[in-house]
Amino acid sequence: VSGRGRTDPATVASLLVEALPYIRRFASQVMVVKYGGNALAGATGQPRDPSGGEAGALATFAEDIVLLRSVGILPVVVHGGGPQIGEMMRRLGKEVEFKDGLRVTDAETLDIARMVLVGKVNREIVSAINVHAPLAVGLSGEDAHLITAEQRSAQLGFVGDILRVDPTMVKGLLSQGLIPVVATVGIGTGGQAYNINADTAAGAIAAALSADKLIYLTDVAGVRADRDDPDSLIGQIRAAEVEQLIEDKVVDGGMIPKLEAAAGAVRQGVHRAHVLDGRVPHALLVELFTDAGVGTMVLP
Amino acid sequence: VSGRGRTDPATVASLLVEALPYIRRFASQVMVVKYGGNALAGATGQPRDPSGGEAGALATFAEDIVLLRSVGILPVVVHGGGPQIGEMMRRLGKEVEFKDGLRVTDAETLDIARMVLVGKVNREIVSAINVHAPLAVGLSGEDAHLITAEQRSAQLGFVGDILRVDPTMVKGLLSQGLIPVVATVGIGTGGQAYNINADTAAGAIAAALSADKLIYLTDVAGVRADRDDPDSLIGQIRAAEVEQLIEDKVVDGGMIPKLEAAAGAVRQGVHRAHVLDGRVPHALLVELFTDAGVGTMVLP
Amino acid sequence: VSGRGRTDPATVASLLVEALPYIRRFASQVMVVKYGGNALAGATGQPRDPSGGEAGALATFAEDIVLLRSVGILPVVVHGGGPQIGEMMRRLGKEVEFKDGLRVTDAETLDIARMVLVGKVNREIVSAINVHAPLAVGLSGEDAHLITAEQRSAQLGFVGDILRVDPTMVKGLLSQGLIPVVATVGIGTGGQAYNINADTAAGAIAAALSADKLIYLTDVAGVRADRDDPDSLIGQIRAAEVEQLIEDKVVDGGMIPKLEAAAGAVRQGVHRAHVLDGRVPHALLVELFTDAGVGTMVLP
Amino acid sequence: VSGRGRTDPATVASLLVEALPYIRRFASQVMVVKYGGNALAGATGQPRDPSGGEAGALATFAEDIVLLRSVGILPVVVHGGGPQIGEMMRRLGKEVEFKDGLRVTDAETLDIARMVLVGKVNREIVSAINVHAPLAVGLSGEDAHLITAEQRSAQLGFVGDILRVDPTMVKGLLSQGLIPVVATVGIGTGGQAYNINADTAAGAIAAALSADKLIYLTDVAGVRADRDDPDSLIGQIRAAEVEQLIEDKVVDGGMIPKLEAAAGAVRQGVHRAHVLDGRVPHALLVELFTDAGVGTMVLP
Amino acid sequence: VSGRGRTDPATVASLLVEALPYIRRFASQVMVVKYGGNALAGATGQPRDPSGGEAGALATFAEDIVLLRSVGILPVVVHGGGPQIGEMMRRLGKEVEFKDGLRVTDAETLDIARMVLVGKVNREIVSAINVHAPLAVGLSGEDAHLITAEQRSAQLGFVGDILRVDPTMVKGLLSQGLIPVVATVGIGTGGQAYNINADTAAGAIAAALSADKLIYLTDVAGVRADRDDPDSLIGQIRAAEVEQLIEDKVVDGGMIPKLEAAAGAVRQGVHRAHVLDGRVPHALLVELFTDAGVGTMVLP
Amino acid sequence: VSGRGRTDPATVASLLVEALPYIRRFASQVMVVKYGGNALAGATGQPRDPSGGEAGALATFAEDIVLLRSVGILPVVVHGGGPQIGEMMRRLGKEVEFKDGLRVTDAETLDIARMVLVGKVNREIVSAINVHAPLAVGLSGEDAHLITAEQRSAQLGFVGDILRVDPTMVKGLLSQGLIPVVATVGIGTGGQAYNINADTAAGAIAAALSADKLIYLTDVAGVRADRDDPDSLIGQIRAAEVEQLIEDKVVDGGMIPKLEAAAGAVRQGVHRAHVLDGRVPHALLVELFTDAGVGTMVLP
Repeated sequence: VSGRGRTDPATVASLLVEALPYIRRFASQVMVVKYGGNALAGATGQPRDPSGGEAGALATFAEDIVLLRSVGILPVVVHGGGPQIGEMMRRLGKEVEFKDGLRVTDAETLDIARMVLVGKVNREIVSAINVHAPLAVGLSGEDAHLITAEQRSAQLGFVGDILRVDPTMVKGLLSQGLIPVVATVGIGTGGQAYNINADTAAGAIAAALSADKLIYLTDVAGVRADRDDPDSLIGQIRAAEVEQLIEDKVVDGGMIPKLEAAAGAVRQGVHRAHVLDGRVPHALLVELFTDAGVGTMVLP
Repeated sequence: VSGRGRTDPATVASLLVEALPYIRRFASQVMVVKYGGNALAGATGQPRDPSGGEAGALATFAEDIVLLRSVGILPVVVHGGGPQIGEMMRRLGKEVEFKDGLRVTDAETLDIARMVLVGKVNREIVSAINVHAPLAVGLSGEDAHLITAEQRSAQLGFVGDILRVDPTMVKGLLSQGLIPVVATVGIGTGGQAYNINADTAAGAIAAALSADKLIYLTDVAGVRADRDDPDSLIGQIRAAEVEQLIEDKVVDGGMIPKLEAAAGAVRQGVHRAHVLDGRVPHALLVELFTDAGVGTMVLP
Repeated sequence: VSGRGRTDPATVASLLVEALPYIRRFASQVMVVKYGGNALAGATGQPRDPSGGEAGALATFAEDIVLLRSVGILPVVVHGGGPQIGEMMRRLGKEVEFKDGLRVTDAETLDIARMVLVGKVNREIVSAINVHAPLAVGLSGEDAHLITAEQRSAQLGFVGDILRVDPTMVKGLLSQGLIPVVATVGIGTGGQAYNINADTAAGAIAAALSADKLIYLTDVAGVRADRDDPDSLIGQIRAAEVEQLIEDKVVDGGMIPKLEAAAGAVRQGVHRAHVLDGRVPHALLVELFTDAGVGTMVLP
Repeated sequence: VSGRGRTDPATVASLLVEALPYIRRFASQVMVVKYGGNALAGATGQPRDPSGGEAGALATFAEDIVLLRSVGILPVVVHGGGPQIGEMMRRLGKEVEFKDGLRVTDAETLDIARMVLVGKVNREIVSAINVHAPLAVGLSGEDAHLITAEQRSAQLGFVGDILRVDPTMVKGLLSQGLIPVVATVGIGTGGQAYNINADTAAGAIAAALSADKLIYLTDVAGVRADRDDPDSLIGQIRAAEVEQLIEDKVVDGGMIPKLEAAAGAVRQGVHRAHVLDGRVPHALLVELFTDAGVGTMVLP
Repeated sequence: VSGRGRTDPATVASLLVEALPYIRRFASQVMVVKYGGNALAGATGQPRDPSGGEAGALATFAEDIVLLRSVGILPVVVHGGGPQIGEMMRRLGKEVEFKDGLRVTDAETLDIARMVLVGKVNREIVSAINVHAPLAVGLSGEDAHLITAEQRSAQLGFVGDILRVDPTMVKGLLSQGLIPVVATVGIGTGGQAYNINADTAAGAIAAALSADKLIYLTDVAGVRADRDDPDSLIGQIRAAEVEQLIEDKVVDGGMIPKLEAAAGAVRQGVHRAHVLDGRVPHALLVELFTDAGVGTMVLP
Repeated sequence: VSGRGRTDPATVASLLVEALPYIRRFASQVMVVKYGGNALAGATGQPRDPSGGEAGALATFAEDIVLLRSVGILPVVVHGGGPQIGEMMRRLGKEVEFKDGLRVTDAETLDIARMVLVGKVNREIVSAINVHAPLAVGLSGEDAHLITAEQRSAQLGFVGDILRVDPTMVKGLLSQGLIPVVATVGIGTGGQAYNINADTAAGAIAAALSADKLIYLTDVAGVRADRDDPDSLIGQIRAAEVEQLIEDKVVDGGMIPKLEAAAGAVRQGVHRAHVLDGRVPHALLVELFTDAGVGTMVLP
């Protein structure tokens, strides 16, 4: 933050006058932040990058989460880890099978997925936060039955759909001032573990916590009306308009589960959902504490 | 705050990264702010100035106090009102008598002083704050024996020195989320009211509240090593150095009771005392939430 | 209280047996006491009367209020100050203007009224109570938006009607064991102050606090069926009968707003309203703690 | 209480001004009242006396206890019942044996004593109080080991000396707003019951409860310097003077254990002990709530 | 408990696995245990039996109650004492009068009954429990108006029917961790005491406490389909079937009020009522903590 | 538990009388249970054994932990996973290097170890418990800085010694009624993870929690005076005797860190430490709730 000295006092004052009311409004509010995708893939599991590239992205994200906590916001981090699971399967010589374009998760694949999500990706995020203060606690959706799931289909194996979220334990950790970091493995009624889509899980957890905000940090620049035109960023849409966007193929790929989960969470009481470009440094802070946004906001 | 849009996101982010830790540190801390002097004299008791001059200063001060409150700080406002008392005495045809350069306060003068401080100056500050939210409560030091005083000397009449401060009621109002605004009239053991120097009272109240900060908003630019050189602002001094500054006549006039009270409060456990130039807009915010200061800080 | 020794034990015992159940019944009950009118005018703003006359009336009133508090009752004092305002206007050479028999309150008049009510009359009452113990806290209806008001009519200037009473702050002070003393200045939605009829304000405050009792201390001997016959005191009336009394001109003058506010408060849940002769020493105690009353009681 | 109407308002007011501060001072204070002796013997176990004699004494006592409770005092009643035990032994044809002037308590005598104290005398007092409100709870010193005792001597049988008092249960009942009524049977370490002197037990219970007052209601007019001169009532004595009074035979008989227990309790932190003439109607009220006393007070 | 060493670890483990869930389920649950009848008659009021017979039964019962308390259950003991009352009446030469087969209770009989129940039987049970720990507190239904009653009929004298149960005081004692032991004397609205059937009172107290269980410890082996066939024990019946059993004369005598009170309590929210053979050692423990029962259970 | 019906009621009663006081004594006590070693290696990471062998051992352990929780005990499970780490290293073609007989842990080995401990072994234990109820929460010693560690030596790489344990988060989970399951990875001051000996960690966690008990479940039959003589089991030793046992080579191998940690924990305030034969079914229950033990107990 060197160079701040050059900012003139009037600009500083006007920024503070702008930011302080947001800080007041968000105090004691729960915010569920989905962190993941390719940025995460780059940031972890690799030799530390001396140029401060991807590893720096995780460090900046962790700093932002700690700053949010420091002004009274209650962040909950949710993450996936597809690329890291794939990498480990390759190392173990396990082949990935697909059916109708979806990955089949047999018992061994599930075991590897859980091991990587809970024992590796989750740990990297917890460590990055705990460098600042002993705040983060890593969790699996199995813990205290946070995420109860059921099998989606026999062909796909241990891929689960969420039946219900029990946020009691997460609330307990929040009330202790801690930051839960959740790997999205669910538990079936008979004790069987299931792999769960992390975007969907983030939405369900936000709804169960009556979160004020659900925020997706992605590696794209929000939703664009014309995918090739950087100036066509859609600043905000209503939950009711999401289906149309998908039908019109304005959005596709990984953006679909994000927008669907965002719309669902907003319909269940989450105040606002956001899709942000996680590549912008401190995107979380700029989005939350200034009038201008840096992504797409989903309203009820 | 128009024009903020032009500030680039990197500057915004770096300012937020700088400000948020201060907000965390100051949350739930008591800050006693002495507001007064000539700025106040200009700001009140006059027809509203359409150019936003002095009246605007009071409004900006009130806005800052409300913003501090909104991020969890517990401000207490202390004020005097010398010019307004003089003006009312003139209107009532009461002559001011001096002895050895000090104003003699007879029973009628005291009555007028109390009426103006509690019924007029205090009211103006309370009103300016309550335009934003029903937060301010006007108090006299007599209420619930907040300030117990004794006569300084028979010749000066009803001028009092502080014997003790009982902060119980003020703490009660703070715990209700309210902003006490205190006119510095004290009460003697027999029920007699006394006029109290507001700078001294602010220091004693800050000490009794174990305040984190004691802040004097003045109409000068902090303490200068060379009074005529704007670049000789003394950024910080230790409480132990204050006496020397006074002896060396580096400071004089109204700055003396401020620095003495600041040094005394710091010695009694107040963490920091500040003398700020209240003419800088939002001086309070810039001082509190950025690394660079805009005044003189007194350390233990 | 010398001479009590002459009261025989049986009388003492029977009085105690009579008084104790009232003390039990009233413990922790809020009682709003309107003090004011001419007695107050005499008691304050004058050289102390060595014969203990009017000044003694205020002292006795203050003693009673402290005694009520000492047995667990939660008194709230409400006062006006018409005569004192008039006196200050005369001293400042400001002429009183009337329209249709009502005093016009321009900006300067309001400023003077507020200054006198909050800075002088309120202070006298607070001081008289605090001679006994640090219990009283002086308030204006503007503080924390206790009384929100609106303009009655453009011709009358800054004379206000009550829109609503927010008793939160007063309840906070009561729960601290303090005695609020309220000057009846209200605040408009835009921050404008208004002068409010103190009898009406007392009733509205009693209703907002769900007070057990609303008590008017006046300088007349309650309501008489025949104004010239001291034996025709009306011991109690129903709220529904008040309008008829006014229509029949059994009561007039300052008694009308008292009875109307009393009836209104009782209709809004205040248990009983009383109009007492404040000139009887310790009238409050005798009314509250004995079977026989010394004034007129308004029932639902 | 008929006839109170004739008491003039000034007398009423002065009595209230005198009584209210006592009520304040005694609120939430524990007062242990020993009731017993011959008055009790007359008051219970007999056909109701239509002339309101002795039975009226118990009823008046009960009314006073309820009135004390109603103004926030926490009374604890302790009682004995020697005459009633003797009467039951006569009815059961059991002879009383004496050794060195003291009654021998064999197993059967103890059984009868406990039955009469707990099942008869205690019940009469509880009933008399509960006519007013469901406040009294009858207890034996055995309950929850309130009174732990040891045998005084083999010859006397089951006569016990107090080893310790555990006031936990009594405090629990007091905090529920109830009035414990204690029959003074103690329990030995092996579970054996013992008969305990009620005057001594009252003192020990008062000390264990850190009671504000310990009050003996007797059937004599306090302690007299000259037993035959009604005007020689000793208003107050110090605990240190009690032994001398006994040595000098100024007091004798049943007054000795009372004064000794009173002195002991005062030395262990009870604020004041009183010996009152229980035959004066409402003696408790007159003693507690007026400046003049009706008995002998023991000071530290 | 000697000889336990011979039980093999597998049996021990299986018993613990069976018992622990019951302990969990019953923690903090109120259980009303009616103890009485002839066993009690034998156990008390007699010279201690060196062979450990009946007196041993009371001791074992007391041990069980203390063990229940020790694992977090909240037991309330209710008892009668018919045989002991009869014995005392004989000793006092008082004849028992019957009308239509029911005992007439005149004033003297009531006095004796109360004295025996509260001062003798209740004391024996309290003592037996307090040998283990200072837990038991003896109560009469008159205390704090636990049992309010009305006269059943003029001919029967002071025999009462229960009007209502106020369990506040009992709940207070339970929350202190104590064990209330209740003698079933009731109080009429005018203060008159009444003798109450203990079986009925136990049911009413259980209902008022929303007890989890109501347990009758009798001297018979539960309810039998054929009174002469020990193998015809009815393990459980529904509340609705009780009337039919009585009509069919399957049960008679003292079992009728037990079953009626059990059925009534269950209908008012008590979870289960049990009639156990109190002659089986530790019957309470075996019934509560194992899958197999030793008596008859009444379900809703 | 079939066949319990055959146990006679007297045996059942005597077992209950024996067990209930232990249940009372242990309620709300923290017990740290170290589970691990070869039993765990067999129980997890293998195809489910239809004969109910090792997998059954984990299931029985989980059932016991849930039963302890159900009677108010607060268990904390600590585990290692050496065999599972070795297995994963083999699968990933990573060779194990030794220096002076100790395994060298380079960065990749640490990554694998953490992944297996947190993502695999920990998950198996959590799942086994959560089959019964949603009670278990899996943790790493890194979470909220539960275990802060430092490097033991440069040669051994990322093997850590414990610097301190911060039990705050674990206490928070316990107060929510949850069962923490801890994988013993520590965090260095710079954020570096370290592998920690699980036996040592269990002792340090027990000490930090002021646990009542520290229990090691092993696959040997406690400590024997003569390793080859099953009858020479040492029932209990003092902490001070542990060093001698090690010196005398009475114990060796994995028993050494267990006994040292046990002795250390006992010296820091843990009440008792136990080394049990985890192969005995329900060994935990039999040890805790009966007078006879099944292992070696370490006393202060």
